Amino acid sequence: MKAEILSVGTELLLGQIVDTNAAYIARRLAELGITLYRKTTIGDNLARASAAVREALQRADVVIATGGLGPTEDDLTREAVADALSVRLVESPEVLASLARFFGARGACMTDNNRRQALCPEPGAGGLIPNPMGTAPGVLFESGVKRVICLPGVPREMEQMMDSWVVPYLRDRGRGPDDAQVIKSKVVRTSGIGESALEALIFDLAHGHDNPTVATYAGGGECQVRVTARADSEPEADALIQSVLARLDARLGRLVYGYDADTLEEAVGRLLAHAGLTIACAESCTGGLVSAMLTDVPGSSRYIDRSLVTYSNRAKVEELGVKGRTLAAHGAVSRDTAVEMATGVARIAGVDIGLSVTGIAGPGGGTDAKPVGAVHFALADMRRPSLTTARMRFGGDRAAVRARAAKFALDLVRRHLMGDSQNRPADHPTGGQ
Amino acid sequence: MKAEILSVGTELLLGQIVDTNAAYIARRLAELGITLYRKTTIGDNLARASAAVREALQRADVVIATGGLGPTEDDLTREAVADALSVRLVESPEVLASLARFFGARGACMTDNNRRQALCPEPGAGGLIPNPMGTAPGVLFESGVKRVICLPGVPREMEQMMDSWVVPYLRDRGRGPDDAQVIKSKVVRTSGIGESALEALIFDLAHGHDNPTVATYAGGGECQVRVTARADSEPEADALIQSVLARLDARLGRLVYGYDADTLEEAVGRLLAHAGLTIACAESCTGGLVSAMLTDVPGSSRYIDRSLVTYSNRAKVEELGVKGRTLAAHGAVSRDTAVEMATGVARIAGVDIGLSVTGIAGPGGGTDAKPVGAVHFALADMRRPSLTTARMRFGGDRAAVRARAAKFALDLVRRHLMGDSQNRPADHPTGGQ
Repeated sequence: MKAEILSVGTELLLGQIVDTNAAYIARRLAELGITLYRKTTIGDNLARASAAVREALQRADVVIATGGLGPTEDDLTREAVADALSVRLVESPEVLASLARFFGARGACMTDNNRRQALCPEPGAGGLIPNPMGTAPGVLFESGVKRVICLPGVPREMEQMMDSWVVPYLRDRGRGPDDAQVIKSKVVRTSGIGESALEALIFDLAHGHDNPTVATYAGGGECQVRVTARADSEPEADALIQSVLARLDARLGRLVYGYDADTLEEAVGRLLAHAGLTIACAESCTGGLVSAMLTDVPGSSRYIDRSLVTYSNRAKVEELGVKGRTLAAHGAVSRDTAVEMATGVARIAGVDIGLSVTGIAGPGGGTDAKPVGAVHFALADMRRPSLTTARMRFGGDRAAVRARAAKFALDLVRRHLMGDSQNRPADHPTGGQ
Repeated sequence: MKAEILSVGTELLLGQIVDTNAAYIARRLAELGITLYRKTTIGDNLARASAAVREALQRADVVIATGGLGPTEDDLTREAVADALSVRLVESPEVLASLARFFGARGACMTDNNRRQALCPEPGAGGLIPNPMGTAPGVLFESGVKRVICLPGVPREMEQMMDSWVVPYLRDRGRGPDDAQVIKSKVVRTSGIGESALEALIFDLAHGHDNPTVATYAGGGECQVRVTARADSEPEADALIQSVLARLDARLGRLVYGYDADTLEEAVGRLLAHAGLTIACAESCTGGLVSAMLTDVPGSSRYIDRSLVTYSNRAKVEELGVKGRTLAAHGAVSRDTAVEMATGVARIAGVDIGLSVTGIAGPGGGTDAKPVGAVHFALADMRRPSLTTARMRFGGDRAAVRARAAKFALDLVRRHLMGDSQNRPADHPTGGQ
């Protein structure tokens, strides 16, 4: 089975929103082993959307469209697909009644424009796809062996319908003689290495293999290795991936922090929870980002119970006990201040590990000695006690500097705890860079 | 001039990364008044990428491709475009030398696979586009009146090259007789209203207008209104937009927090800075998100100097002075605890406004009385003093609950300060919901 994705919405062509829906659908299709060769984005225009549906159906068996099902008059996807397939749309009394119930339950009034959401393909040409979270049902069009599945553009609704209806539907349609393949992918997530260096490190694994393929890419402030296998069954695909994965892991060692949808904060959380350690952060330039990332992990209250965001010098002194003379002598962005922040927050919170970040996020505030992007980090391990410090200079704008600094701080904890579990305390380099 | 965007990368078709590049390029094209009718995504496959280039050039004058210019062997965009246009690629000695310098300056070794980045179109068929931030130069292909511009997939590099090279290049190419139009758009950003209700409120403005068009959409936890005008000149387009904008603003009032790329945290920051007020946050379930958003705004140190993330009951008592008996009687997720958190942080930080958030982010921890998504907020204005409280129940997963709670908290500040500037203190409703 071959599929294409069609994203409908002028706001996508104007760049006002980023198409996260297409990525979500693509992941689900990959998990099903359905080949996706193309994604297309088109605006709220009946003729062009209809043409795009026709073209996609020449190449693919199934087209999944998102967007353009809402209540407003520029929501044209139903009409475009009906036109492409020469199918008539009729108003469904059941959907009308259910729309009235939906609005009634919320004490809201159903507007006339909501009625268009009750349009569905004429009998024999498809049906509606339930949308438990919103007013716009999805629409299934069936024409010969071709299928067009229309889902709303609101990500939460689309995702729910994709998981509860579309995935089982596509799985049930079974596979034809040409679709005997499963495609499986594993992403190896690394931290602390650039793409070119990463590829050089695994060059022999990345080349001369057609199945599985091994490819590197950079994104989201890190580099990843993607291993993709095609096979007749899931276990076969898994075995192919495993054969390469073992070699990748051996080659990359501690550069690997996780796999697939793992996040760095989950990796850090697992290490903390496993060791039974607690952590507290003292953040300046990251302003709460490190704490927000750490607490994004369910169950993080096991290892983090507080963090102090100390943006001003006064707050650093009052909340963390940083010494006035340290700030006067070295400035807020310095190794010494970072160290007093980390030890201060660890002492106050009574935790095992204090982590601090202080830097110049920009755009203003940079000097020759401390340019925008300069960030100091300290990690105080109160059990020994030991100190690890680092100074980095990150590129990019304010948001990029903050995001990179937050990731670096988390990776500092990860590397410290990895060293922990593999070295004896005496062998562990402290004092840092 | 008509343009299309071609995103190249199997990782996009597997849904492993979201295509933010296409949105960025689309915004720049819209600003230039260049019509974008379609975006296409294709994998790292020479034949399919080459076919997609050929198809796009049948519809458009300019194709902007991103991705597939890196050093690895699955980076095939140069080759695909050369194939589609029947252009030969030759190695550029200048680029080779500059690559060697780039690696030398970083104390790194140039690998053989980096050499492919020195391939450029044969003389007369285009040239290279400088990439000041990375190793892969962009490539310009010229064939008759058609142009293909290839940019790297790393967002930071692509954005820099788009702004410094591609935008001036496209502007200089001038406009043909059919391209007399400028497209301009204005996005009106709202907070606190759903899409259907928003459309009902502005139905007459959204319909019966072809130019400018007025459309609503939902995304990123808020609803927006997009006004798009086509005209022969920028001032004409601006005038068309202004005529509708004034009516939208009058209709929507305080639901509007900003325009275009404005963020809620910027709107809140402007109000705080304008009033000369200071703020501090006491966060529980949001774990630092509200503080991270507030400090994401350059110059935010004028109004925020600290925030306390108090995840555990102990931290709420120790850091904020929340009373043990309040926690025992009402629990951490309660109006009373939220109030003591807000007044506590305001007192400790010595600021005008204390803002607190405490709730159940999930997935665990919910009960019938306090289900997942239940969040209490308090805003203590220490000048009067006055208290505003709110209780909300947000849908979605842990990340969605946290993000929505953070946005709601910021909007609580915005609405409080808007009331401030327009009502006398005696008229201002306090005590809350």
